[in-house]
Amino acid sequence: MNSELSSQQVKDIGEQGLLERLQRFCPPEIIGDDAAVLVTAPEQSLVVTTDMLVDGVHFSNLTTSPEDAGWRAAAANLSDLAAMGASPLGITVGLGLTGEVSVSWVERLYQGMTECLQKYNTPIVGGDIVRSPVTTLAITAFGQVHPSQIIRRSGAVVGDAIVVTGVHGASHAGLELLLHPELGQNLKDTERTALIHTHQRPQPRLDVLPILWKILTPNVQTRLIASLLTPNSQLSVAGMDSSDGLADAIIQICRASGVGAVLERRQIPVPKTFNHWLTPEQGLEYALYGGEDFELVLCLPQDLASAFVQHLGEGAAIVGSIRAGSTVLLHDEQKKFPDQVLSLSQGFQHFDS
Amino acid sequence: MNSELSSQQVKDIGEQGLLERLQRFCPPEIIGDDAAVLVTAPEQSLVVTTDMLVDGVHFSNLTTSPEDAGWRAAAANLSDLAAMGASPLGITVGLGLTGEVSVSWVERLYQGMTECLQKYNTPIVGGDIVRSPVTTLAITAFGQVHPSQIIRRSGAVVGDAIVVTGVHGASHAGLELLLHPELGQNLKDTERTALIHTHQRPQPRLDVLPILWKILTPNVQTRLIASLLTPNSQLSVAGMDSSDGLADAIIQICRASGVGAVLERRQIPVPKTFNHWLTPEQGLEYALYGGEDFELVLCLPQDLASAFVQHLGEGAAIVGSIRAGSTVLLHDEQKKFPDQVLSLSQGFQHFDS
Repeated sequence: MNSELSSQQVKDIGEQGLLERLQRFCPPEIIGDDAAVLVTAPEQSLVVTTDMLVDGVHFSNLTTSPEDAGWRAAAANLSDLAAMGASPLGITVGLGLTGEVSVSWVERLYQGMTECLQKYNTPIVGGDIVRSPVTTLAITAFGQVHPSQIIRRSGAVVGDAIVVTGVHGASHAGLELLLHPELGQNLKDTERTALIHTHQRPQPRLDVLPILWKILTPNVQTRLIASLLTPNSQLSVAGMDSSDGLADAIIQICRASGVGAVLERRQIPVPKTFNHWLTPEQGLEYALYGGEDFELVLCLPQDLASAFVQHLGEGAAIVGSIRAGSTVLLHDEQKKFPDQVLSLSQGFQHFDS
Repeated sequence: MNSELSSQQVKDIGEQGLLERLQRFCPPEIIGDDAAVLVTAPEQSLVVTTDMLVDGVHFSNLTTSPEDAGWRAAAANLSDLAAMGASPLGITVGLGLTGEVSVSWVERLYQGMTECLQKYNTPIVGGDIVRSPVTTLAITAFGQVHPSQIIRRSGAVVGDAIVVTGVHGASHAGLELLLHPELGQNLKDTERTALIHTHQRPQPRLDVLPILWKILTPNVQTRLIASLLTPNSQLSVAGMDSSDGLADAIIQICRASGVGAVLERRQIPVPKTFNHWLTPEQGLEYALYGGEDFELVLCLPQDLASAFVQHLGEGAAIVGSIRAGSTVLLHDEQKKFPDQVLSLSQGFQHFDS
């Protein structure tokens, strides 16, 4: 990018000029009408989710490059689709900009968004650009899911295993390392970079859905699993993503399902590099309350859960089980720590109190 | 609403408290998951449109009540769906709020939105509420349309009649009367109120779609129309809405279709009450450049256009026709005015220059 371009501000080219500049990030066939038209597959339900992000509240040039802000915004919405069991169809992007924002900042934001979206074959299908006193990003993502494969928070039943699709706490660790470079002096550069990258470029776990449905679909190769399914019952999976923290996800699922849960504190997977600079208790704190890991937290029968975790590979784990009642208990199988009741109001900073 | 409630600010109850307060505006079955699930009809395409509105730029408490701001935001998005030939399925609402906004302002905004949406059986299916230095509203609307009934800007062909589904200029007139109460002294109170109401509560023309498809569908009762359709040709209608002004709509359609147009200046329908306070030239200026009338501007064969206008009733009219070339000409059949070429850059304020 030459210096003339990079110094250009939105007010120099106007919203219309900017729209034209951003069209290269959108499929050409959707441009030029009042709305975008998309083809959905037959017998699929539509899934819709929306997020709003405000400069200084949800992102900041101080800690986040425009590419990373774009990636993270796209990833968060795709993760909400994954949490419902849905495949993405497209997103719309509403953008409020001050006149002083540089054109290159906006292009880099779109670059980051499309880098994430392209990984999941998801187009930007519509948008709106308006003048605003504060940079604001409104993303709506829509996807499709077969009605029998919708994942809801409300489907957990007593006896279900609670599966996490990967390690937790890495995103928060990456943020801490960004904000406080003096932390983690024992970390190798590659380890530090990996944790920071996890924070900057979270991966929505759309990849686990085909694995999940393969495990859940009875067929001749999976006799064991088939025998668990009674012919007339629809096996359902409960779950959500852990974008607001693992503790939050499990509590939300339990609330929606009218059940309780017990978590085994030593089963909660954290990055291996945590033991180079964090105590196990700090690591657990990051995992439970750090948030933005964008893993899926799923409740399903124990045998299926074991097979599922095995297919998912490293990082995935059964972290506990659903039980009757309404409390979510953090339990230590080695009895070194007393049982602890988790609650939403507990929050990150109060965990040790 | 009691005084305690009406003085409450968003910061008093927080985003979560506000979300709970606003749940009454949403269907209960869509609340409580990461995303909303909607059922679409088979063989329909999905249509998506998004708008962003910023306090002080797109709405203001000085001229617009929160109910009207909500209605207008919903209406604009439904009009975009109508412009594509689509029926609405739902909208998502992203809301950025300062802590000082009163809870009752937000509730009145939602009240206005849902008043408009309920007229068209359209639910609010998702949302996000965040803290922002400026009140911001991001709406994404979803609809569905059979692929054969998609209305695009690009389908106009030479010889098509240009139909408007109603009078133009009323919304801008209403705004002028709101901003300058000294105008229109000859208007009766009911006439003044009617024009202002048109500005405050625009009607998306979803109602004209069934009439359009009835006219276009050959059947035994419409032999004349059937004879116009060759068996293997798909009759398509070009069009868009006139939210950015009638001149803009026709120019956009011509650009997208690679054609020109001639408009008959005396055929452009304006409210009858205009002649009580505006010259015909002023009325035409309001109609062409005022914007926010949210009528549909449609191009279709002359005979079908006549039948369509007849079914639509008062206000609907054929205002011109599509011809070869690329210019959009304003023509006076009485030759009192010379032909005038319309262009997008002409803008409202420059019309007389």
